[in-house]
Amino acid sequence: MNNVIPLKKESLSFGRQITELTELCKEDLISVNTLILEKLDSNVPLVQEVAKYLILSGGKRLRPLLTLSSYYITKSKNLKNNNSMNHIGLAAAVEFIHTATLLHDDVIDESRQRRGKPTANEKWENKTSVLVGDFLFSRAFQLMTKYGNTNTLKILADTSVTISEGEILELANDKNLEINEDIYFNVVNAKTASLFSAACQVGSLSANASKDEVNAMKAFGTNFGMTFQLIDDAIDYSSNKKVLGKNTGDDFKEGKITLPIILAYGRSNDKEKKFWKRTISNLNQEKGDFEYSIDIINKYQCIEDTITRANHFSNVAIDSIVNFKDSEYKEKLVQLVNTSLSRIY
Amino acid sequence: MNNVIPLKKESLSFGRQITELTELCKEDLISVNTLILEKLDSNVPLVQEVAKYLILSGGKRLRPLLTLSSYYITKSKNLKNNNSMNHIGLAAAVEFIHTATLLHDDVIDESRQRRGKPTANEKWENKTSVLVGDFLFSRAFQLMTKYGNTNTLKILADTSVTISEGEILELANDKNLEINEDIYFNVVNAKTASLFSAACQVGSLSANASKDEVNAMKAFGTNFGMTFQLIDDAIDYSSNKKVLGKNTGDDFKEGKITLPIILAYGRSNDKEKKFWKRTISNLNQEKGDFEYSIDIINKYQCIEDTITRANHFSNVAIDSIVNFKDSEYKEKLVQLVNTSLSRIY
Repeated sequence: MNNVIPLKKESLSFGRQITELTELCKEDLISVNTLILEKLDSNVPLVQEVAKYLILSGGKRLRPLLTLSSYYITKSKNLKNNNSMNHIGLAAAVEFIHTATLLHDDVIDESRQRRGKPTANEKWENKTSVLVGDFLFSRAFQLMTKYGNTNTLKILADTSVTISEGEILELANDKNLEINEDIYFNVVNAKTASLFSAACQVGSLSANASKDEVNAMKAFGTNFGMTFQLIDDAIDYSSNKKVLGKNTGDDFKEGKITLPIILAYGRSNDKEKKFWKRTISNLNQEKGDFEYSIDIINKYQCIEDTITRANHFSNVAIDSIVNFKDSEYKEKLVQLVNTSLSRIY
Repeated sequence: MNNVIPLKKESLSFGRQITELTELCKEDLISVNTLILEKLDSNVPLVQEVAKYLILSGGKRLRPLLTLSSYYITKSKNLKNNNSMNHIGLAAAVEFIHTATLLHDDVIDESRQRRGKPTANEKWENKTSVLVGDFLFSRAFQLMTKYGNTNTLKILADTSVTISEGEILELANDKNLEINEDIYFNVVNAKTASLFSAACQVGSLSANASKDEVNAMKAFGTNFGMTFQLIDDAIDYSSNKKVLGKNTGDDFKEGKITLPIILAYGRSNDKEKKFWKRTISNLNQEKGDFEYSIDIINKYQCIEDTITRANHFSNVAIDSIVNFKDSEYKEKLVQLVNTSLSRIY
C-alpha cells in the first residue's frame, strides 16, 4: 500500500493540516463561531445548555472550513472588497445541520460517548436530544434564509432530505450482514458526503462562482466526504488506538455495518460467518470478540481494501479541483485529502 | 357559561364547519394532497411507508385549510387569473411541518395511540419516527424553497424554531405542577398557535396581501390556535367521551400539565394537592384516579375557566378579521372559531 499512502511525517498529518487550514481561515472562522454563539441564544435555558455542550465541544469545524475554502478558492478579484457575510452565515448553517444530525444520530445509535465525552442523550435524555436537534435544524434554515439565495437554499434543503433518507436507509439495513457495497456507498454518500459537497457548493456560490466551478467543488466535496468516511470506518478496526478524535471498536460494539465488515463477511468461512452473525447481527458479544474481529479483518486484507476504495475517491476529489488557479486554499484542500488517507496510520 | 358558548346545533358543530370549509376549498385541497403524495416519494421504501401512515391517516388538514382560506380571504381581483401554485405548495409545507412535529411529539410523549390507531413509534420504533420526522421537515423546506419567497421562508423558518423551543420549554417543565399560566400560554403559543399563525400568514402572502392584511391573518391564526389548544386540553377532562378525534384521559395518563390541571392544583386543598403530586408528578396512578381528577376539576370550575380563557382568544381571533370584506371564506373562518369552542359539549 506504499504507493497510495503518503509517508507519515508530522507535517503531513491530518490534524496538522486542519490546524493550518484553520489558521488560514482564522478571521472568518472567528466570525462563524460568533454567529454560532449568537444563534444558540434562546429564551429556554435548556436549549442553550445542550446545544452549546455539543457545538462548543471542540469539533474540528471541518465542514465550515470547506465552505470558507470553497469561497476563497473560487472568489474572483472583483469580489475582493465585498463585505458580504453570506459565506460566513452559510458556513454556520452547515455546522448547525451537522450538529443537529449528530444529536439525532446518537439517539438512533444509542451512543454513549462522542469525542471522549458522554453524548447529549447520555447526559440529558433522548427526548432532549431530539428536540434540540430540531431546534438547531430550524436555526440552520433561519441562517440559510438570511444569508442564502434560491440556489443555496435548494442545495441545503435537498441535502437535508438526502441525509435523512440516508439515515433511514442505514436503519432499514441495520445489522444486515448481507448488504452489498453499493448500499453502503449510498449510505455514506447520503450521510456524510452530501453535506461535505453542499458545504463546498454553497461556499463557491457565495463567491459568485461559475456553474463549472460550483460543479468542481461539488465533486471535490462528495469525493472528499467518501474518502473521509471510509477511512473513519477503517480506523474503527485499526490496532492503533491513538487516532485523532476516534475510539476504535465503537462500530463493532454497536453492531454497525461498515465496509471492513462487509468485505470480511463476504470472504469469511462458515465458522467466521457464524462469528459475525453472533457478534454483529445478534449483538451477542464476549470478551476478546473485538480482537478476533480484527484478526479476521486483517486475514482478508479488509482494511487495505477499504483504504484502496478510499484512495479512489481521494484521487477523484483532487482531480476535481485541478483546473482552479493555484492558491494557498487549493494547496491546503489537496493536502487535507491526502493526509485524510493517512489518519489510520 | 351560556353567554360564551353557542347553543349546540348540528349545523354549528366544529366537524360540520370543517367539512363545509373543506368543500369550499375542495379543488385546492386535491392539489395539496397530490403534492403531499408526490413529495412523500422516496427511494427508501420505509420512508414512504411511515410517512404515508401518518400523513394519510385522515387528519382534518386544518392547517392547510387555514393557508388556503387566508389566501382567498385576502386575494384581490387582479390576482384572479394567476395560475400560481404558491399557496398550494405552502399549504403542503405547513402540513409537512405539522406531521414532522407529531412524529417527534409522540416519541417525546411516549404516546401509543393517535387518532385511534397505534402511533408510528409504537408500530415501528422511536428511531424510525425521529428520522422520518427529519425527512418530512426537510421536505417542508424543499417545498418552501420552491413555492415561497424571502418573507414566507423567514416566517416558516422562525416558526420551526419557535415550535422546537416550545417543545423544549414544555419538556423542561415536565410534571411540574407549580408552573404558572404564563408558561403554559407560552408553550401553547409556541407549540400550536405559531403554526396556525404561520399557515395564515403564508396564505395571505401568496395572495400579495398588504402588510396590515397579513398582520390581521397572523393575529387570527395565533388566537384561533390558542382557542383550539385550550379547548383540546379541556376536552381531555370532559365527561363526554364522544368528542371529535379525541380520547379523554390521555393527558392525565401521561401526566401532562395543561390549564385544567394548573387551575385545579392552585385551588386544591392539601389532600387534593397530594393527589395531584402522586398522580401527575410521580405518575403513580390507580383505578378511579382519572374520575377523581375530574371531580376536583369540576369542584373548582376549572373546565369553565379554561373555556373562558379560550373564549377570550376566540373573540380576539374573530375581531382580527373584521375589516376584511365579507366572503364565504371569512364567514367559514368565523364559524370555525365559534364552533371550536363548542367541541367540548
